[in-house]
Amino acid sequence: MAASFASRLAWIAVDWGSSNLRAWALDDAQQVIAEGDSPRGMLGLAPAEFEAALLEVIGDWLPASDLATEVLICGMAGARQGWVEAAYLPLETPPSEVLSRLATRLTSVPTQDTRLNVQIVPGLCQRPATGSATAGFDVMRGEETQLAGLLASRPGFDGAVCLPGTHAKWARLETGRLLDFSTFMSGELYKLLSQHSVLRHSLGADELHDEAQRAAFLEGIDTAMAAPERLSAELFGIRARDLLDTSLPTGEARGVRLGARLSGLVLGLELAGATARLPAGARVVLIGDEALCRRYRLALAHLGFSVDIAANADMILSGLGHIHRRGDSQATSPSITS
Amino acid sequence: MAASFASRLAWIAVDWGSSNLRAWALDDAQQVIAEGDSPRGMLGLAPAEFEAALLEVIGDWLPASDLATEVLICGMAGARQGWVEAAYLPLETPPSEVLSRLATRLTSVPTQDTRLNVQIVPGLCQRPATGSATAGFDVMRGEETQLAGLLASRPGFDGAVCLPGTHAKWARLETGRLLDFSTFMSGELYKLLSQHSVLRHSLGADELHDEAQRAAFLEGIDTAMAAPERLSAELFGIRARDLLDTSLPTGEARGVRLGARLSGLVLGLELAGATARLPAGARVVLIGDEALCRRYRLALAHLGFSVDIAANADMILSGLGHIHRRGDSQATSPSITS
Repeated sequence: MAASFASRLAWIAVDWGSSNLRAWALDDAQQVIAEGDSPRGMLGLAPAEFEAALLEVIGDWLPASDLATEVLICGMAGARQGWVEAAYLPLETPPSEVLSRLATRLTSVPTQDTRLNVQIVPGLCQRPATGSATAGFDVMRGEETQLAGLLASRPGFDGAVCLPGTHAKWARLETGRLLDFSTFMSGELYKLLSQHSVLRHSLGADELHDEAQRAAFLEGIDTAMAAPERLSAELFGIRARDLLDTSLPTGEARGVRLGARLSGLVLGLELAGATARLPAGARVVLIGDEALCRRYRLALAHLGFSVDIAANADMILSGLGHIHRRGDSQATSPSITS
Repeated sequence: MAASFASRLAWIAVDWGSSNLRAWALDDAQQVIAEGDSPRGMLGLAPAEFEAALLEVIGDWLPASDLATEVLICGMAGARQGWVEAAYLPLETPPSEVLSRLATRLTSVPTQDTRLNVQIVPGLCQRPATGSATAGFDVMRGEETQLAGLLASRPGFDGAVCLPGTHAKWARLETGRLLDFSTFMSGELYKLLSQHSVLRHSLGADELHDEAQRAAFLEGIDTAMAAPERLSAELFGIRARDLLDTSLPTGEARGVRLGARLSGLVLGLELAGATARLPAGARVVLIGDEALCRRYRLALAHLGFSVDIAANADMILSGLGHIHRRGDSQATSPSITS
C-alpha cells in the first residue's frame, strides 16, 4: 500500500460472521478507503487461526509503524466458539439505552502482531421479563451493531426492525431504546425442509420471478397467518398437492410453484408471530441481504405494512463507526472512578 | 413347514412400509399361525425386487400346490415408487363409507411365483372440500387399513383418531364414516431439528423418564398451544436457554431437558392444530408405536382429553382381515354388472 494510504488509515471495521468476514479500511472522516473479504468464517476456524485469517485480508493495509491500528469486530467472532468470547451485554428492564453502551464493553483480543489493536463488540442477551408476553431467552451477535447503526442514522428511532437471515431477528425500539427482540429460526427451517425433508422431492428452484410464483408465495403467507397452528399439516400438504393438485403446472414450473408456497408458509409463520403486536400499517425497517429483504417486503407490503430497506453493509459500518467514535471519546475522557 | 401348517393356512397379511415389512400367516378362523418381518422396506427396493423380498419372509409358508395363496398388502408398497401403484381411493363429499369400500379397489400384482395371489390395498386421497376449513390436499397409505381395523372392532365409531409417526395422521370419524383427515409432519420436523439444526448442539438423549423431563415436555406443549405463531422463535429459544438459563441442570441432564422441551414444542404445534375443533374432554384413539403413543397420551391427558391406545399390529390385522373377508364375499357374490 502507498504511504498516503497508511497515513489516511484511521481504523478498520470488520463484520465476522459464521461463514465469512468482511473488512473495511476507514479514514478519519469515516470514508471507506479499502475493503476486503474472506470465506473464512467463525465456524471454520480454531481460536489460534483467527489472527492469521484476519491478516490475510487486512495485513497489507497496516502501517509498519509500532502504532497499533484499531480493528473493531462485530459478529460471531466473539462467540464462545469464536476467537475470544465477548460476553453478552444484557437487556434491562425497564429498557435502557443498551445500544449506546456497546462501546463501553468491548473485549480486547491479545495478538502477536503488534500492529493490531483488536476489539470485539459484545452481543446482547435477553432473559424473560416479568410482564412481557414475548421477551424470552434470546441472544444476538452482530445485529446489535446494525441496530446501533440504524440509531446512529435515525436517532430516537421508534418502531419495528427486522433483520432477515438464517436466524431472523425482530427488534422493537422506542425512542431509541431497545424494548425486546425475538429470533425466528425460519431461514434454517426453510433450508432443512427444502433440502432434507420428504418435501425436497416436490421442490424446484427457489425463485419468485413471475406473478404465479409470487401468488403461490403470498398464498403460503396468508395460509400460515390465518392458521399458524396448522403449519406442520400445511407443510405435508405441499407433498399432497404435488401428488394430487391438477391445477398446478407440470414440469419444472410445478416444483418452483410448490417451493414458493413452502417459502411463504415458513415466512408466514414468522410474520404471524412477529407482527402480532404491531399496529396495522406500521412501518418495518428491514436490514439484511438484498434478495431476502425484497422477499420480506413483498410479504409485509401484502399484509399492509410499510417497509424501509436499509443496506446491510451501511448499517454495519454506521454501527461500528458509532461504537468507534464512542470508544474514542471515552478513552480520551477523564475517568472519574479510577 | 409341516403339512398341517399348509392345510391350515388361509391367507397372508402384510404391512409393507417405507422402511420394513411385517407378515402374518392366518387360518380360516383369523388366528395368526406364523409371523415374520424384514428390514427391506419400500424405499430400499426397485419394483423388480419386491417379489423376492416378500418370498424371503413368506416363501416357506406357501404350499407347493398350484392353488395360489392370497397375500393382502397395505402400506407404501402400493406407492408410485413401490411394487405396483395402487391408485388412491378418493374421499367423497358428503362423507361416504369409503373405509368399507377398500376391498372393492384392490390392485392385483402379477407375480412369477404361481403360489402367490398378491393384492394391494388402495391408499386414500383427499382434495379440498367446499365448506371445510381443514380438509386440504392430503394422502394416506397404510393408515386407511388401520382405520378400517378400528371400525371392524368398533362399528359405527364416532370421534378422533390419531396415528402418530413420522407423518402423523389425524382422522375424524362420524358413525363409521371418515369425515376428513390431516397429516402433520411433526415427527419429521422433530428429527430434522434435533439432528440437523443449530439446536443439535444443545440436545441430549430423547427421554421422558423423570418428572422434570415430563414437566419440560409439557411446558413445551403449553407454550406451543398458547402461541403457535411463535413456534420458530420458541425453537431458537432452546438455543438461547442453553446459553443463558441458570435454572437448568448442567451436564447431560441439561440436554435431555432441552430435548424434552423441543419435543413438546413440535408436538404442541400439532396438537394446537389437530385438537382445535375437538370438544373439551373428547376421546382420542391413538394407534401406533407404543412409546410414541405414550408420549401423545401424556400430552393429550395434560390437555384434558381422554385417550385410548389401540395396538398398531392389532389394527392392521383387524383391517386386513376385514378387507380379506369383504373381498371374499364379493368374489363369491353373483355379479350383476358383468
